[in-house]
Amino acid sequence: MKIGSQTIQLENTPKLLQTASMVGPKEMDGPLNQFFDLHTDDVFLGEKSFEKAESKMLEQCVNHLLSKAGMNNSMIDYIFAGDLLNQCISSGYAIRNLNIPFIGLYGACSTFCESLALAASFVNANYGKNIIATTSSHFCSAERQFRMPLEHGNQQSPTSQCTVTGTGAALVVPNSSSIHSLYITHVTFGKVIDFGIKDMTNMGAAMMPAAYSTITTHLQDTKRKLDYYDAIVTGDLGILGSELLVDQFQKEGYDISHIHKDCGVLIYDKEKQDTHCGGSGCGCMASVFSGYFFEQLKSKKMNKILIVSTGALMSPLSIQQGESIPSIAHAVAIENEV
Amino acid sequence: MKIGSQTIQLENTPKLLQTASMVGPKEMDGPLNQFFDLHTDDVFLGEKSFEKAESKMLEQCVNHLLSKAGMNNSMIDYIFAGDLLNQCISSGYAIRNLNIPFIGLYGACSTFCESLALAASFVNANYGKNIIATTSSHFCSAERQFRMPLEHGNQQSPTSQCTVTGTGAALVVPNSSSIHSLYITHVTFGKVIDFGIKDMTNMGAAMMPAAYSTITTHLQDTKRKLDYYDAIVTGDLGILGSELLVDQFQKEGYDISHIHKDCGVLIYDKEKQDTHCGGSGCGCMASVFSGYFFEQLKSKKMNKILIVSTGALMSPLSIQQGESIPSIAHAVAIENEV
Repeated sequence: MKIGSQTIQLENTPKLLQTASMVGPKEMDGPLNQFFDLHTDDVFLGEKSFEKAESKMLEQCVNHLLSKAGMNNSMIDYIFAGDLLNQCISSGYAIRNLNIPFIGLYGACSTFCESLALAASFVNANYGKNIIATTSSHFCSAERQFRMPLEHGNQQSPTSQCTVTGTGAALVVPNSSSIHSLYITHVTFGKVIDFGIKDMTNMGAAMMPAAYSTITTHLQDTKRKLDYYDAIVTGDLGILGSELLVDQFQKEGYDISHIHKDCGVLIYDKEKQDTHCGGSGCGCMASVFSGYFFEQLKSKKMNKILIVSTGALMSPLSIQQGESIPSIAHAVAIENEV
Repeated sequence: MKIGSQTIQLENTPKLLQTASMVGPKEMDGPLNQFFDLHTDDVFLGEKSFEKAESKMLEQCVNHLLSKAGMNNSMIDYIFAGDLLNQCISSGYAIRNLNIPFIGLYGACSTFCESLALAASFVNANYGKNIIATTSSHFCSAERQFRMPLEHGNQQSPTSQCTVTGTGAALVVPNSSSIHSLYITHVTFGKVIDFGIKDMTNMGAAMMPAAYSTITTHLQDTKRKLDYYDAIVTGDLGILGSELLVDQFQKEGYDISHIHKDCGVLIYDKEKQDTHCGGSGCGCMASVFSGYFFEQLKSKKMNKILIVSTGALMSPLSIQQGESIPSIAHAVAIENEV
């Protein structure tokens, strides 16, 4: 049922049964490498283009999820998926091969929580027993689509983030299943927020207000306080965007510095890896949540987390036409006990 | 609840309370002009680019829907929306101004039914009381993104379709509302189907197998026969795709020629308008359903229809890389009595 202004309380507390993750070579050089299920050293994955490689990575990750869950594709009711490529071809072509009824999404880097929120909402409403949420991104396909071809060798701005070559997939099932697992209790869908930032190399600043809006709305809607959660995990605000978010809460009298985590900050080593403000892309939260945070929850190092993926809804064309960057954030609450 | 393999039965039969539609000059020259709420003679709508014009059209259409329903934007729980432009900027920027919690979709020309199906699924599950589904397309923005800039003046292939400059929006509310209206009883989400067609100027042929798959699956899942419906309305198979669909059913022993309608065929006059195989685009079914078919249902000229929007999930890049065109179709059953 809907509670408050933007949140759905999932009374039947669907379970997050299993996840799978896959990343590229740079992410395997980073500090979270032990948490990823699969990785590739070849950014082409044996394919002839980066786009085909990204699509193959998503397909492999979903197949690995099915294998971990002991299922096959015919047991999956629906798959919610999206990516950053024009016309979402990474998802479309991958799911052609997976042969699962498909609901395609676009929410830029917010798509992982959008996808997981919809999957959980569907299971909660008895619209399916096994529903998958997945997203992907690939550094090389994103660079040439959103910025410059790699061959151009352009210098990155200090505020820029590095698109993660990665994917994550999550399987949501009804609570009636006897296997102990994590519960998805609430989902909050965001509004489009635009504070007028036009610099495509500073996504963290552009997306921060959307994260702030969705987190505060989620807390109001659920009547929870910040300390209810062991961690509030944003998708890819990066180093600068994360600082801005902490500052913004500070201005309102709240200190979130000890509970705020950002997947874009965590995935790379800022001292050793040349990734400026950190990671970004649909595959950033997808792989870091499905790898690292899922493990933290399963091992009860964390028991209640709010994940908030943030997306910048511009296109290169809209920026060329002088527009600012509209952003959005969607949140999913995941808990060990209900 | 889920029934059969791909269908959700909406036991609470949410109501389709109101729709609104808006089209461009070519569509107003066509045979359905009396059914559209709004139109523009200026394809720029006073904006500086076709993309901004498309976004403005979507925003105006949603505002008109709110006005027809006697509501304002703060009364709307969620809006499901999508379009054909890269990164779905038409929807993203329009909804920034509308200030409604936003769930972004990409399903190419299948997005209208995807959007309406999700809106109805959400209302059925008590996730909101007023939920909007909307999509748009614009001939000029689509031409330069998917094919050639208009200035190039390229000749169209005889099998090509003309992207509709149009938008439609629908408001779904719970059945508990006392106002008599139409009911959404079932939704069927499609699988990605690819028969290997690589010709981007022959979308009708590429999408027909997806329409066939979703229609037949819907009938199996609901245990309904073809003649249950007064009309089976596809989105934009166009003239050739529609003939292929009728032929395909004929091969299986069914004659659907008398009940099959296609929005892409209906929207233009094939004798007088130079539109080859008819209309296409997210805005085609959105405007034709929200204009013409909604009126047919309200006036009880039709009482039970199945609308099936069809989408081709390729991008210009995937075609350049030698890929074929994967397609998908989603279906929504709308009835006067339940």
